[in-house]
Formats: sequence, C-alpha cells, structure tokens
Amino acid sequence: MPATATDPRTSRARSWWGWGYADAHPDDAACVELGALLPGTLARPLPLPRIADLPIGSPGVTPPASLAHLVTDDPAARAAHAMGKAYRDVIRALRGRPGRIPDLVARPAADQDVADLLHWAGEHAVAVVPFGGGSSVVGGVEYRGDAHRAVLSLDLTAMDRVLEIDTTGRAALIQAGALGPVLEGQLRPHGLTLRHFPQSFEFSTLGGWLATRAGGHYATVRTHIDDFVQSLRVVTPAGLGTSWRLPASGAGPSPDRLFLGSEGTLGVITEAWMRLQERPRHKASASVAFADFHRALDAVRAVAQADLAPANCRLLDPGEALLSGAAHDGSSVLVLGFESATAPVDDRLRAALELARAHGGRGPAPTADRPAGTEAEADRAVSAWRSAFLRMPYLRDGLARMGAVVETFETAATWDRIPALIDAVRTEVGAAALKATGHQATVNCRLTHVYPDGAAPYFTVAVAGRPGDEVRVWDDIKAAATDVLHRHRATVTHHHAVGRDHRPAYDRQRPEPFALALRAAKHALDPHHVLNPGVLID
Amino acid sequence: MPATATDPRTSRARSWWGWGYADAHPDDAACVELGALLPGTLARPLPLPRIADLPIGSPGVTPPASLAHLVTDDPAARAAHAMGKAYRDVIRALRGRPGRIPDLVARPAADQDVADLLHWAGEHAVAVVPFGGGSSVVGGVEYRGDAHRAVLSLDLTAMDRVLEIDTTGRAALIQAGALGPVLEGQLRPHGLTLRHFPQSFEFSTLGGWLATRAGGHYATVRTHIDDFVQSLRVVTPAGLGTSWRLPASGAGPSPDRLFLGSEGTLGVITEAWMRLQERPRHKASASVAFADFHRALDAVRAVAQADLAPANCRLLDPGEALLSGAAHDGSSVLVLGFESATAPVDDRLRAALELARAHGGRGPAPTADRPAGTEAEADRAVSAWRSAFLRMPYLRDGLARMGAVVETFETAATWDRIPALIDAVRTEVGAAALKATGHQATVNCRLTHVYPDGAAPYFTVAVAGRPGDEVRVWDDIKAAATDVLHRHRATVTHHHAVGRDHRPAYDRQRPEPFALALRAAKHALDPHHVLNPGVLID
Repeated sequence: MPATATDPRTSRARSWWGWGYADAHPDDAACVELGALLPGTLARPLPLPRIADLPIGSPGVTPPASLAHLVTDDPAARAAHAMGKAYRDVIRALRGRPGRIPDLVARPAADQDVADLLHWAGEHAVAVVPFGGGSSVVGGVEYRGDAHRAVLSLDLTAMDRVLEIDTTGRAALIQAGALGPVLEGQLRPHGLTLRHFPQSFEFSTLGGWLATRAGGHYATVRTHIDDFVQSLRVVTPAGLGTSWRLPASGAGPSPDRLFLGSEGTLGVITEAWMRLQERPRHKASASVAFADFHRALDAVRAVAQADLAPANCRLLDPGEALLSGAAHDGSSVLVLGFESATAPVDDRLRAALELARAHGGRGPAPTADRPAGTEAEADRAVSAWRSAFLRMPYLRDGLARMGAVVETFETAATWDRIPALIDAVRTEVGAAALKATGHQATVNCRLTHVYPDGAAPYFTVAVAGRPGDEVRVWDDIKAAATDVLHRHRATVTHHHAVGRDHRPAYDRQRPEPFALALRAAKHALDPHHVLNPGVLID
Repeated sequence: MPATATDPRTSRARSWWGWGYADAHPDDAACVELGALLPGTLARPLPLPRIADLPIGSPGVTPPASLAHLVTDDPAARAAHAMGKAYRDVIRALRGRPGRIPDLVARPAADQDVADLLHWAGEHAVAVVPFGGGSSVVGGVEYRGDAHRAVLSLDLTAMDRVLEIDTTGRAALIQAGALGPVLEGQLRPHGLTLRHFPQSFEFSTLGGWLATRAGGHYATVRTHIDDFVQSLRVVTPAGLGTSWRLPASGAGPSPDRLFLGSEGTLGVITEAWMRLQERPRHKASASVAFADFHRALDAVRAVAQADLAPANCRLLDPGEALLSGAAHDGSSVLVLGFESATAPVDDRLRAALELARAHGGRGPAPTADRPAGTEAEADRAVSAWRSAFLRMPYLRDGLARMGAVVETFETAATWDRIPALIDAVRTEVGAAALKATGHQATVNCRLTHVYPDGAAPYFTVAVAGRPGDEVRVWDDIKAAATDVLHRHRATVTHHHAVGRDHRPAYDRQRPEPFALALRAAKHALDPHHVLNPGVLID
C-alpha cells in the first residue's frame, strides 16, 4: 500500500504536516510578508519539518497475514495520519513535537475489510482511529494516552465511489471515503450535486462530514449534512447495520441520528444514501453595509425570521470585512445570496434587502436575478471570496511558520444571547491572548449560519506567539474562549465537532442521562473500547 | 384527584371509550345513517359501553403516603387510561373486552413528582405508562402482558403551562402535558404559535407529540415536531437531564434526537423549549384535478422537488376526493397551500400550479395572495375540509358501533417505490379485507406530507366487519398492510409511532446495531425496566 501523500485525483502531493497541497503553501518569502502583518512575529519562517526527523519507531503490533495487504507501516503514511489540521497540529509538527504517530495505517476496500480490521483490533487492544480526509481541527483523528497496545489509523479513502444514483428521487448511494471533489465529479454527469461545500471540501470525506455533523453550503434551514441523509451503513465491532432509505420516518428515535456526530466512537460509516439536488439555475446576491454591528445583528435576525431561506447570509464584522476587502471604513457587511433550480429568486433578495435597510443597512442595487453561468459583478465578488476562503488555511500555516498563533473557533446560541456573547468573546479572548503573548490580538467574527431562533458566530484569532511556547499560548487562549462560550450557554461547537480538544467542555454541556445512554450504547457496540478512544465518551 | 373525564378547558366530558368529547359522538340515528353507507353492517348500533360493566378490580399496589395525593384508583379515571383511541381500542371497548385497566392513575404536578413516582415504581416492579392526551392509535398507552406487579398510568396533563416566552428568538418553554388548545391559548396573546396541528390537536399533548415524533401542519420541509425542538427536559429513573437551548449544534449525536420518538421507554419528557412562529399574514391556496392518479403523483413530486415549500400539498386519490367532496368524477385532487408571515406567496403558488398543469392537472384560477383574515372561496374550502377532518374520528366510532371495521394507517417511502406501493396496498389490503369479511372494502389514499425524495401516503380502510370478530378482522387486514409495506421498504410509520401494535414490524425494520444501542441505553436509564414495557425495545 502506498503512502497517501499524493492525491490520487490530482497527482499533487498532500502536505503531511499542514493544510492541503504541499505546493500551495506560501514559500519563505511569502511567509515573511504574512508575518509583517502581525507585529511581534519572527523575522524568518520556521523551517519545514521533515518526516525523517520524526520519532517513528517500529509498530507495536503486526497484523495477521490475512490483513497484511490492507495495512502499511510506511513512515510517510504514518506521519500523514498522526494528527488533524488544527493550528495546534501544525505548530506541533513545525516544532518537532507531533502527536503520537500511529503504528499502522489501514486502507480497507470493502465493508468486510473494515469488519475484519475491527475484529482484529478488538482482540489485540489496538486503538482504531477512523480517518477520512484528516482535516479535523479538534483533535478528532489523533490518538492520545497509552491505554492501548498500538494505534491503527483507519483510512477510508479507498472506498470512494458513487455506487448508485436514483434520479427519480434525486439521491445517491456514496461510499464514505469519497473526498468532496471525488464524489461531486461522479455526480456531475447526472446533473446532480450534494451541494455540501465546507471550507475543507477538497480535503474531507463524506464519512467525515457525517461522523462530525459538518456544516455545509446553506446558511439557513438545511445547514448541516444531517439533513441530507437518507440512510447510513455502519460497520460496528458488534455487527453491520443499514437503515432503510426513507424520506422521513417516525419509527422510534432516528437510528441515523445516533451515528451522525458519533465521531467514529460507535462504528465506522461506510456508505450513505444522500439526498441530492439539481444545480441552481437562478441566483441573486447582494451586500449591505452597516455602520453598527449590533444593528446588523438585528437585520440578520429579521432576515432569518422572515422565512426567506437565503443560501448565503454571512455577516462580517468590521475586522472580517476589512480582511476580506468587503469594506474599508469600519462597516460591517452582510452578504446575502439566494438560489434556486426552478424559480426566480429576485423577490426573496428584494425582501431581504428591505429588511436589512429597515435596520440601517446601506446597500448597493441588487444584482438582478439571472440564469446561472452569466458572469456578473456579484458573481466575481463571490468567486473572489471563495478563493480567499479556500486560501485561508494555507495562510494560517504560513503565519504559523512565522511564530504566529492563528486559529478559528465557532459556536451557536439563541438570539437573546448573541450580542453579549460576541462582545464577551472579543473582550475576553483578546485579553487572554494579550496576557499569554504580550501582544495585541486580532479577534474577528462572522456569522456563518443563521436560524430563526439564533445564529452561529465564527471567530478568528491572530496574534504573535511566544516563540517555542505556541501550543501553551493557544491552549490558554482556547481555554478563555471555551469558558466564555460555556458561561453564555453557547455550544462548544456548531460544526467543527468535539474530538479530543473539546471533550472537557462537551462533558459539561451534555445532559447526564444522555451521557449514560451514550456510554451504554458505546459499550454495546464497541465492547473492547477500541474505536476512537478519548472522543465523546469513555 | 378527580377523574379526567372532563376537559378542564371546555368543561365538556371526554369519552372514555371513543374519540374526543362524548357529546360530539353521532347518536344512534346518525350511526344508522353512517352504517347505510357500508353494505353489510349492522341494522342497529352496538350499545354504548358502561364503565360499571368493566372488569375493574382492586389495585395490585398501594402507593406510599408521600405519593397518595398524586394517585387515584377511581374506576372512571382508570377506564379512561386503559387504552388509546385506535379503532382496535374502540371496538374492544364496545365489545366489552378492553385492554388491561391500569391499577392506578397518577397526575404529577412537577418534575420531582415524576421522579418520585418513577423511583417508587422501580422499587415495586410497577409498570409506568406515560399518558398525555391518550390519543395513541398504535397501542402506545396500553399495558400488555403480566410481567409487572401492577400498572400505573402517568397522566402528565396537570403540567400544562407555558412557563416562559422568548419573543426575540421566538421560542417558549412549555410543559409537556399541555394539550394543543391549552398551549396555543397561552401563546396567542404574544402573537406567536407553535403551528403544530395534527388531527388529534385537541386531544394530544406536546409531550405526546415529542415522544412519538408527531407529524404536524407543514406538508414539506418541517413536517415533524422534531424540527421545532430547541431543548428537552427529561426525567428518567436514572436522573433528570436538560439539554441546552440551542438553534443548532454539532456537539456529538443530538441528545434530543434520542428522546424524540422514544415513546416513554427511556424517560418522561416534562418540558421543552419549542421554536415558535408568527401567525401567517399571507396565504394562497388552490386545487388541481387530475384524471390520472399516477400523473398526479408525478406532479406532486415535481412540486416537492421545486423548493417551493408549500405548507399544504395534499393529494387525494379518487376515493378520498369523492368522500371529501373535492371531486365527484373520479378525479384525483391536489390541494396546494402556501403561507408566510412576511412575504406574498402568490409567486410560489403560481409556480406550483404551472408544474401541476404541466403534468396534466386541470386547475381553477388560483386564489390571489391576500392578507390573512380575508374570507375567500379557498379559505371556506380549507375550513370545510378541516371541520370534516376533525370530525372523521367521531364518524369512525359511529361506524364502529355499526359493526364496521374502519381504520387508517400511514407510511413513507422514496418516490421510486411510491406508485407501486400505493397500488399494492390497494390491491392486497382490499383482498385481505374481502377474505376476512366477505365484503368489498374501500381503500383510499392521500399523500399528507411530501419530500424531494419521497412521500407519506395515508390510507383509510372501511369495510363491514364480521360481527363479534372485528378485532381479528382488523388484525388480519393490518397484517396484510404491514406485510406489503415491509416488502416495499416503506416505513412502518411516518408519524403514528410504533407503540405495541407496530412493534414486530419495527423490530424487522430497525438496524441491528441501533437495536443493541437502544437496548443498552434503555437498560442504563431504566434499570428496573418499568417505563412503557413492550414499546420499542425489551
């Protein structure tokens, strides 16, 4: 089995230590330019880490001959499966202190392979860490501790095919290991799309999205991947299960909803029937500027409560607006987008803009409704934003090489808590960053998803680190962030998942009877406790 | 504690053996008129059953003094809590063979009362059957078997207040025992509504809706009560839990989704924060007739896939259309309704009608969009349909008194299976009814809820029964229905729940790993196995 350092679709080498493609990383000169934006960072970038320098020993176990063809102990593959892609992971790699390197990496090709690997792991106390695209930013794919004899990273990306398409009901049976572009490429010839575009789209899989309840394309109504699931196929140590393909059902608690968000602790999702959509033929978008962020929040709430279902309803605070080039005068900017495969959307945009203006928004004339494909000003803006958005994690890694601490976190809360929550995060996280580093931090906020009853704020923190001590600096900042979220009863995560990083906060947030139920379910399905230990529940 | 035979809101006596209010039942003469519609029924109605004739013995247990004020052994209360309101329940009462009468009925007033009752029941092997409005049509509130020393019906309707309203985020904290009109009455002064209107609205509670994943007002998108839940408060034998009020969260599997649909087997839902809505200000509706039912199905699918979100999208087959007066010429009728609190809906109606006509629909001119409150032709039609709809269960009971077998069942399936499924149900259920009774049965179908990927067909069966043997006749018909649903991979229930009647089919439908997880969760939360025994899982 080859190392997975090369993307089979693009033939471009994946970075083992940082985001995405190795050739897309800023070079040393670009890193220096980035560093100049943050006072107090290093003069020269940290050198690129080398796999040869990693503490990669011999595997603690040897798989049986029957499984040998699925498993590798290749150092490059093991290094690439050691951690996710949080800032915390990147800086640890850069500083030569990565998380525990797995003993083995397996690439099953079928359900039976997964079942056989789980069976073997259970019998030999080998921890199994399910691995899709490896883009976790919460420590979801990294083993911690030493309760197991060895660690196996279970890479699902060899199971990446669209197996069946139902064009009548617009659904497809898709293997869980398909990366975003891999599955969309197979759906495109049928005129259909899953239309799930997280920032990690290129480097994350359907199974990862399902196991972590990923947030996707839509800002309203159908915000999470959960809403597009028709049925799941799950391999557990206690056996395989497939739920029926149903548009809806009231037969007991939803079986799928127990596995959605289970983060590899209850079983391995290997296939799913997913609801698809036609590509949109009508689109309209426009931006509105606000002098006052709190009034902008009121505007967004009005839009969210008006049943208009914008596909995009992104509010950028002044810092985010400045960074993305949307405003340079301290304004907040609300970006509204509507789309439909069947009907014009200009009425909905007009209604949303009226609400925004009624709350003090200053807006340009909207882009008229038009057939998709027509290039227009707003399209170019959207497309520029999307490029910048996809480029962001690479810049984060460049800044990390300059000794900066740069990371994001996100949450959701009801509207009555949102204004005070955002203000408190800004103040308290900024103070924690200053205390930890001696430098003034940038703390920006945008709303990524909105609901009639609340919103999901997304925060970005950037500050020069304390050289050599960046992990502790980030942990201090993150502790302050977690604390303020908890005090405001804002969820520990809206769509980044729990992993190991959010585990203590999740334990405090989760109702105790559900903890009892989840623990019991875990024990029933994973009696040897080998599935993603440390995540969600013990 | 008084018997609950009188509705505290209306002061009208509730029927202990049949649907709704006793004074709303058809009288003997009306029953004879109903019977004339079904050849082969009795000449005279069965007499009304009397509580005095029921086999009500002394309770098998005595509650401790500390709980005595919450508990009654009054025969009328016990009789009213013995069964739900399925045809099967009604005919058993009429034939003097009701289900097991509970030993005691408790009416807790607070969480602590519920916890104390559960604790006592666990220690004394007393089965606890949670009871809201008692409108279950699947044997959800009836104890069967003899594994417990006694049976306690836990009536939640004393906990019926709206405790708090958040007008900013449009949500309310509502006690689970509130009947539909009771909670709407408390929300109305705030200009808000839950807008959940099942057929049982008057006689079912929020807690019952949540525990059974009830289907509500909306034909599309937000079809089930699940979608309106912000957080739940659940008392389990293992302790009390409250989930956080959140608009959305990605923190592990949804804790609420485990209890939604748990039908009283894991705990007792005592409160919920529910998402509310403003009353609609814009409405538009219209009907379209189709000569061909299968083309009508295609039309409905086109509408469901066009992202138009009708609030009402009800397709009546020729039999349903005839019965409801919507068509008398063998046409199928599609009733479309749109509504919004904020924006005109005429465009959406127009788009839906165009799709319907493109599939052979013959429609009247749509009712123009107009402010709510304006009386219009379509409003009167809707209002007439709603009255007939709410009257239906009373007519069923009248027919039952004439010895007829009249019942409904419902399901959901993906579009690729829908046409063959509906045809097969008609044929096979009709054949089973003929075989069981010697009479030709009426088997009608309507679609109640529709999705981009499928639909929820709702069937009504009516046939003259075999006098004295109606339960077996219905069980034979139901077995045929369940069998055809299973072969077509259509869910055993879209929104009627599982209860005891659907249990065998549910066991076959449910994925085995989920059964293991649910059984383990049940054991962790209800270690003495006293909560609604026989429902969902053992």
